[in-house]
Amino acid sequence: MTKNFKLIIEYDGTCFSGWQRQKTDRSVQGEIEKALRVMTGQKVVVNGSGRTDAGVHALGQVANFHCDTRLTAAVFLKGLNSLLFEDVVIKDCRQVPDAFHARFDAKRKRYRYRMLNRLIPCALFRQYVWHIRKKLDTGAMRAAMAHIIGRHDFKAFEGSGSPRSSTTRTVMHAGLAETQRDHLDFEIEADGFLRYMVRNIVGTLVDVGLVKISPDDFKAVLRSRDRGRAGITAPPQGLFLVEVKYE
Amino acid sequence: MTKNFKLIIEYDGTCFSGWQRQKTDRSVQGEIEKALRVMTGQKVVVNGSGRTDAGVHALGQVANFHCDTRLTAAVFLKGLNSLLFEDVVIKDCRQVPDAFHARFDAKRKRYRYRMLNRLIPCALFRQYVWHIRKKLDTGAMRAAMAHIIGRHDFKAFEGSGSPRSSTTRTVMHAGLAETQRDHLDFEIEADGFLRYMVRNIVGTLVDVGLVKISPDDFKAVLRSRDRGRAGITAPPQGLFLVEVKYE
Repeated sequence: MTKNFKLIIEYDGTCFSGWQRQKTDRSVQGEIEKALRVMTGQKVVVNGSGRTDAGVHALGQVANFHCDTRLTAAVFLKGLNSLLFEDVVIKDCRQVPDAFHARFDAKRKRYRYRMLNRLIPCALFRQYVWHIRKKLDTGAMRAAMAHIIGRHDFKAFEGSGSPRSSTTRTVMHAGLAETQRDHLDFEIEADGFLRYMVRNIVGTLVDVGLVKISPDDFKAVLRSRDRGRAGITAPPQGLFLVEVKYE
Repeated sequence: MTKNFKLIIEYDGTCFSGWQRQKTDRSVQGEIEKALRVMTGQKVVVNGSGRTDAGVHALGQVANFHCDTRLTAAVFLKGLNSLLFEDVVIKDCRQVPDAFHARFDAKRKRYRYRMLNRLIPCALFRQYVWHIRKKLDTGAMRAAMAHIIGRHDFKAFEGSGSPRSSTTRTVMHAGLAETQRDHLDFEIEADGFLRYMVRNIVGTLVDVGLVKISPDDFKAVLRSRDRGRAGITAPPQGLFLVEVKYE
C-alpha cells in the first residue's frame, strides 16, 4: 500500500551544495533519498517545498515522499536520523493524505537572515552570520523594508539566469530585530520567493543601512524591476529557511 | 622598549587541539604566536590565563605577551585579526603595566556548559552543545549543584593523571538556566579550576538529572575525593570559557 509521508527537516547548509539532488555534489535531498533507499530497498523521490542554495540553512524545511511500505512514520523518524550524518536532522515525520505535496501545497514561507553588526567579527557561530563591520542605520533599513510589504513585482531582486513566468509575490511580513550581542535578524514571510530574492533584498537593505542609498532609492530599485540596480547578493551562511506553512 | 599587551580572545575550539602550543597539532596559542612572529619578526611567547582542552570554546580567554616593539595595541588588534584564521578572533588588545600576567593575576573564571535536552538532536549549532535525549530533572540538578558552592576539595572531579598540589577551590556561583528551544546552560564561577573539573561536574550532574543518582549521592561523590565515583567527562563541545576576571 502506498503511503505519503511529510518530513520537517533541519539542516546546516555549510557542507551542502544546496537542497537539490546533484550528480556528484552532496545535497540534502540526495542524502535523505539515499537513507530512504537503505531503509526501504526502493528508489524513493523526496519532494522539497523548494530549493535552498549552497550554504543556506534550514530550521524547518518541509518535504514529502510516497512509498509502498509497511514502515510507520515513527520508524522512518528514528531510522532516518540514525542513518543521516549529523548535519541533517528529521525533526518530525508523519503520514499525510495521499494528495499532499510539499511544494504545490505550500502557502507561505518564512526566512530569517542574520547579521553581526560590529567592528570585530566572531569566531563562534561564524557559520551562521554575515559580518558587517560598519554600524548600520536600522531606522533607515526599516523605512526601506516598508516598501516590500504587499503584492509587488520582485524582478529587481531575482537572481539573473533564473527567470520565472511570474515575478510577482506577496510579502505578508518583514521585520528587523536587534537581538543580543550586536546581532540583527531580518525576517520575511511571503507566499513565495524568487531565486536569491531574500539575499538580494538583504544586500540592498544593507546599502540603505550603510547610507549608500536612501529608503526612497530602495523603493525605486524595487519599482525598476532591474536587477542591475539592486545591491549585492548577501552571502548564504546568514540565511535560514525557518518555516513552511500549509493550510 | 618592552611593552606588555593584554588580549581578550574568542575562539571556536572545534578545529584546535586546545589552547596550548603543540609540536605539530594546531593550537590557539601557537596560531597567535605565529601571527605575532609575522608582525614583529620576533619570537613572542603568549601567556594564557590557563589551558582549554581540545574542542573547548572561549568567548573571553585572556592572554598577555611582552614585546620590544613600536607597534601599538590598535595595530596588533587589527594585524592579528587579519592574519589569524577566522576561528580565532582578538576582541580586544590593550597595553598593560609590565607586571600584569594573565595566569598569575587571574582572580576568577567563569565557564558555561550548554546542553540540548530533547529527543531529537539539532543539525544547526551542533558544534556547541551536548545533546541529551532523556528529559533531565533540573530541580534535582539544582539541589545537587548547591553542594559545590563555597570552598571544597574537588579532587573527585579532577581529570586523572593531572595531579595538582592543591585540589581545593572556591566556587562563587553555580547556576542552571533553561533557555530557548530546549537548551540548558550550566554556569560556574570559581577562583580556579582543576583539569576537566567543569566537564566532570556536568557529567555527574547529568547523572542526577537522569535520576541515576540523587542530589545526596552527588554530595557524597564530592566528599569522597574519588574520581572513580564521579560520572563521565561531558564532551568538550558544550564548554565555553566565558570570562576571566582580574582585580
